[in-house]
Amino acid sequence: MTGNTFGHSFRITTWGESHGRALGVVIDGTPAGLPIDEEDIQHDLNRRRPGQSRISTPRSEADHVEILSGVFEGRSTGTPISMLVYNKDTDPSAYDNIKDTPRPGHADYPYKMKYGMRDHRGGGRSSARETIGRVAAGAVARKLLRTAGIEIVSHVIELGGVRAKDMNMDLDTMRTIQDNVDKTIVRCADLNAAEEMIAQADAARQEGDSIGGIVETIVVGVPAGLGEPVFDKLDADIAKAMMSIGAVKGVEIGAGFKAAELKGSHMNDGFAVENGTVVTRTNNAGGILGGLSSGMPIICRCAVKPTPSISITQRSMDMKQMSEQDINIQGRHDPTIPPRMVPVAEAMMALVLADHMIRSGHIGPNTLLKG
Amino acid sequence: MTGNTFGHSFRITTWGESHGRALGVVIDGTPAGLPIDEEDIQHDLNRRRPGQSRISTPRSEADHVEILSGVFEGRSTGTPISMLVYNKDTDPSAYDNIKDTPRPGHADYPYKMKYGMRDHRGGGRSSARETIGRVAAGAVARKLLRTAGIEIVSHVIELGGVRAKDMNMDLDTMRTIQDNVDKTIVRCADLNAAEEMIAQADAARQEGDSIGGIVETIVVGVPAGLGEPVFDKLDADIAKAMMSIGAVKGVEIGAGFKAAELKGSHMNDGFAVENGTVVTRTNNAGGILGGLSSGMPIICRCAVKPTPSISITQRSMDMKQMSEQDINIQGRHDPTIPPRMVPVAEAMMALVLADHMIRSGHIGPNTLLKG
Amino acid sequence: MTGNTFGHSFRITTWGESHGRALGVVIDGTPAGLPIDEEDIQHDLNRRRPGQSRISTPRSEADHVEILSGVFEGRSTGTPISMLVYNKDTDPSAYDNIKDTPRPGHADYPYKMKYGMRDHRGGGRSSARETIGRVAAGAVARKLLRTAGIEIVSHVIELGGVRAKDMNMDLDTMRTIQDNVDKTIVRCADLNAAEEMIAQADAARQEGDSIGGIVETIVVGVPAGLGEPVFDKLDADIAKAMMSIGAVKGVEIGAGFKAAELKGSHMNDGFAVENGTVVTRTNNAGGILGGLSSGMPIICRCAVKPTPSISITQRSMDMKQMSEQDINIQGRHDPTIPPRMVPVAEAMMALVLADHMIRSGHIGPNTLLKG
Amino acid sequence: MTGNTFGHSFRITTWGESHGRALGVVIDGTPAGLPIDEEDIQHDLNRRRPGQSRISTPRSEADHVEILSGVFEGRSTGTPISMLVYNKDTDPSAYDNIKDTPRPGHADYPYKMKYGMRDHRGGGRSSARETIGRVAAGAVARKLLRTAGIEIVSHVIELGGVRAKDMNMDLDTMRTIQDNVDKTIVRCADLNAAEEMIAQADAARQEGDSIGGIVETIVVGVPAGLGEPVFDKLDADIAKAMMSIGAVKGVEIGAGFKAAELKGSHMNDGFAVENGTVVTRTNNAGGILGGLSSGMPIICRCAVKPTPSISITQRSMDMKQMSEQDINIQGRHDPTIPPRMVPVAEAMMALVLADHMIRSGHIGPNTLLKG
Repeated sequence: MTGNTFGHSFRITTWGESHGRALGVVIDGTPAGLPIDEEDIQHDLNRRRPGQSRISTPRSEADHVEILSGVFEGRSTGTPISMLVYNKDTDPSAYDNIKDTPRPGHADYPYKMKYGMRDHRGGGRSSARETIGRVAAGAVARKLLRTAGIEIVSHVIELGGVRAKDMNMDLDTMRTIQDNVDKTIVRCADLNAAEEMIAQADAARQEGDSIGGIVETIVVGVPAGLGEPVFDKLDADIAKAMMSIGAVKGVEIGAGFKAAELKGSHMNDGFAVENGTVVTRTNNAGGILGGLSSGMPIICRCAVKPTPSISITQRSMDMKQMSEQDINIQGRHDPTIPPRMVPVAEAMMALVLADHMIRSGHIGPNTLLKG
Repeated sequence: MTGNTFGHSFRITTWGESHGRALGVVIDGTPAGLPIDEEDIQHDLNRRRPGQSRISTPRSEADHVEILSGVFEGRSTGTPISMLVYNKDTDPSAYDNIKDTPRPGHADYPYKMKYGMRDHRGGGRSSARETIGRVAAGAVARKLLRTAGIEIVSHVIELGGVRAKDMNMDLDTMRTIQDNVDKTIVRCADLNAAEEMIAQADAARQEGDSIGGIVETIVVGVPAGLGEPVFDKLDADIAKAMMSIGAVKGVEIGAGFKAAELKGSHMNDGFAVENGTVVTRTNNAGGILGGLSSGMPIICRCAVKPTPSISITQRSMDMKQMSEQDINIQGRHDPTIPPRMVPVAEAMMALVLADHMIRSGHIGPNTLLKG
Repeated sequence: MTGNTFGHSFRITTWGESHGRALGVVIDGTPAGLPIDEEDIQHDLNRRRPGQSRISTPRSEADHVEILSGVFEGRSTGTPISMLVYNKDTDPSAYDNIKDTPRPGHADYPYKMKYGMRDHRGGGRSSARETIGRVAAGAVARKLLRTAGIEIVSHVIELGGVRAKDMNMDLDTMRTIQDNVDKTIVRCADLNAAEEMIAQADAARQEGDSIGGIVETIVVGVPAGLGEPVFDKLDADIAKAMMSIGAVKGVEIGAGFKAAELKGSHMNDGFAVENGTVVTRTNNAGGILGGLSSGMPIICRCAVKPTPSISITQRSMDMKQMSEQDINIQGRHDPTIPPRMVPVAEAMMALVLADHMIRSGHIGPNTLLKG
Repeated sequence: MTGNTFGHSFRITTWGESHGRALGVVIDGTPAGLPIDEEDIQHDLNRRRPGQSRISTPRSEADHVEILSGVFEGRSTGTPISMLVYNKDTDPSAYDNIKDTPRPGHADYPYKMKYGMRDHRGGGRSSARETIGRVAAGAVARKLLRTAGIEIVSHVIELGGVRAKDMNMDLDTMRTIQDNVDKTIVRCADLNAAEEMIAQADAARQEGDSIGGIVETIVVGVPAGLGEPVFDKLDADIAKAMMSIGAVKGVEIGAGFKAAELKGSHMNDGFAVENGTVVTRTNNAGGILGGLSSGMPIICRCAVKPTPSISITQRSMDMKQMSEQDINIQGRHDPTIPPRMVPVAEAMMALVLADHMIRSGHIGPNTLLKG
């Protein structure tokens, strides 16, 4: 019950199923006065849309967004912003064979156990199409954050075992990533690595198999001291946000799992004063200390499993007969998820930060307009 | 504001500072009828207590818990359970030199930026002593989960670069871990690896340095279908719970970051039917599919950074002067955190699961007593 | 921020403005398996629709509801139910003269103070049209409550100073009210009083003035022990729900304000045992003791102020000039609110009860279907 | 479950039972820098303490408050403030005869139905002693509100059928009330009416009976535009807060139930401009329009039922035998509640306003200290 809402002071509720009439989101908590139009939202939705390349599902959807409330004369009014996208290219018949036979790696089996029934068409609510609402809301959150000087970028740093070269994180690096990320279909800013990744994705597609990867998200411009001790820490909320994206199996901040192998004298980022500002020379903390932002760039990486829908025959069972049987998955699917997850990761990061910026008073909750 | 509460249907609020008068927790949502006495709570608190071994801080605290409400004639009444521990061995003078000089790797700097002031004694609220409330509440949650057949164990699987041998996760393995975990001061169930880990911790202590590690948490007995789509997924809530523990820099479920390198045909756990029950032969999912439990053991690993308090001189700055300066940290500290984090990780997992078990109706919210 | 959501375990978020593109609601928390179709919802919406009689606004709206998610093959799936109504008959020009001149008795002035701007067309978000979402969600809540034997009815017991005759509340009386309530345009079950009320409403309309009244809501079938001490008491949540309806200025339970004048020996409802069931001979408590249901009918009354939109010239001010000036309100409005508030009061009561029934486990949170 | 918390951005959790070891509260959300000492809290607790006069229960309790966390060097730190009062004068034996026999007008019966058991000593959690936590937290909230120029006063305006004379509400009147309210044991600012009220209370006490009354709460200094549409309206939250106080059966704002009898032309408060400020000449709205504050004084009245504990024999039943039987209530009790409810009503109003002032950014959530 009631798990479809995210956020405390900037709060979204998503709704909709893969093959239902529409999917959407209601945002509650946007201060009045933010310029918003449908093109802003559409731009981000287009980046997560299916059918963009040979490594994304051929489902043909324009995913045209409509803003139904909360915007008046081009600006947010402070009231809920409701947005939706109607489903057009639905083909439920492709899913008849999975009605009683759960797909390995998918939510089919536990959904049935929880609800006693399920909308099996394309995974229903557990489909990645649910992220339409997240991305639409994230577009608003990003506009809001930009008024406070915060910028977010995500990119693929590993795919099918191919790792992009390490980059020292600073504002210049961020600009390079922003420039490069959409240049290839794998959304890796290291264009050489991107070539290899594409080869891996093509190979997997031809084998009817799939590959996983790692998506990194970087944020610059966050003021020091953002976050709420002791449970609603900034990294705790980021971890929840990212882990709530289907296919994500791990989240790390800064040095992450490597921190387990470092000594304290190496891990700790010493302080320095630069142009009257407190900085750290290294950023193993990934911009977060004790759950609060340090003012350094926030760095988060998500491990993304390979697409669970593969063409290779797999072992499943018939839930009515309670007997084992093979399953062959039809329908349309991507051979790899990370490239299309890039705008979703950006959206989730934006939602967490917008929430904390309002919650902590850095952005006024009522209005952006001067008295 | 208001970040000190965790949970939806089984909800805890912790309070207290390292060198304040007391620390404690209020639990709201325990059904009536659960047998509870102070010894149950004390047992878990003793496992996180300082001064247990040469690798934990010598601060001498009995950490004696008192239950002040919510229990009548040995059973929970359904009303809030308030518990506290008075601080005894406080020595704030050791912290005078860090009043204006933030310790690298600690929350000192962002706390000051957020609140404009801070209780600098022993880290104040950002101290690991805050976990007293978590562990006390976790003890109640674990009792509650046991009424539903759920058991949780955490253990150290990596410390200072030493990795315990991999174990195939089943009920027998869990029993072995439970038997071994408290046999050594590093709480690693692989007793050979434990010896090496201890050597690493001793070496770090002698160098005035510290080491990190990985804590794994395993849960058996969770019914299939637990969790709430799409944001309050079981793995999303676990990720938040674990990342909210100080020093945790990464969280992964099942195959975790390795999933990024697997192919779908390897990652997917095929279904099987065993004694009339649905199982999977492998458990790369770590017991969670689409954010809901699959009925297989839940497996979660946390990357823990090395203790930020080290004796080696570090670079910091004076916040009043805004000038760089060295810092030498006095006070008492552990050379490594994971062994004492074991009961905290168990507690956080218990809190997440108790919350979801009540939220989903698996455990009745009002009472365990029969009508 | 984020005040547009109501409920804990059965949670609704409403959105939309009087003259925007649409209004709607997302319900999160409906268990799977509840039969739902658009006709169920439409029936309740038709009762709150404008243009039903000469004492309701002539705005012509079919208010046709569309269900966009959460229902599959005629049953709820446990996922969010999104519903909307497109606005058709909008005439914003009628509101040009109130752009900078707040209407007395309306939210115009404080909205402007809060948000720095406002959608002035028809009151924007503060319009009574916002209750479309409440009534649509309430229709689902009522269906859910009926599966547990709970029935709700509201009726007008006072209008323009005319009071309906007192009725002893029992199941028979409730049936009479249900039979009579929609027989007259004032929705008073006492048909004689209804005639007088209509006369009052007609007179007010002709004078360009408006009248207030009292709406009573009765619930039968609520099990004893419903509600959550100490803040989320059943009566506290009912009071909030009702007071959140525009124009409501008072809420009372059972004897209500008369209780202030009674002695304890009169007010207290003594217990009795009837057919093996605990009852009380009187019901001054209005079915709620210490914030929990007693098992007796719940009785709640709301004081509704006269419609603030009147044709008579009133005193206001120009917010830009900060100077006083007269205001003449055009647009379309009802001479009295209570008759159209009847379905809204029923909806709010249903929302509170559905929330508490799920929260307390009386209705399972996941599914109504048998394992 | 989890109903013991109140507030969104300034949040309290109360705990404790009438005859348990202690009662208390945790406040989460106080900005850093607020001067707080135990005397501030004790002052308000003394006003609700038992044994103050012949019309309050003779239970002898000093109700000495201890602040255990969240305050450092005399100022709030932004972390949770935990406060408690140990119970001293407990005499549970007086309650043996009500163990299985519910007291009419009390929560005994529904508590047993909800939880399957109950702490029957003095009503356990449903005792009015639970308000200790509310009043202690309210004292902090009031200090916080005073930094923003907001003042709150409650007084008894009706008791046992005796009504205080009406007063036009302005700042002078408020000062008079503040001066007079504690001059008599009935806390009525109209000292003539107070005499009559005392006579009524004495008579009721001698008869072993009890009387009810009305408590009015007035707030000045609230900025216009406070509150959150559409559910978390200021009046909706006030209604919930007040109705959550035991014995309150009705809540009204401004003209309240009288509004039902007024015409719109009378009810509406016309706007005026006075010294460059927007005011209304009348205040039938009670300072709240469309759920947001108007800038005029907030006026709220609560109907309080007569004390349910009376010495007169009443009809009850034996819950084990399911048979009717008489009950004679022993123990200690007040003949009337409103005088001791005055500080509780002030506290609840303060909690609502502190919450909304922070939520809306009028008071910064992190700190009161200048950068």
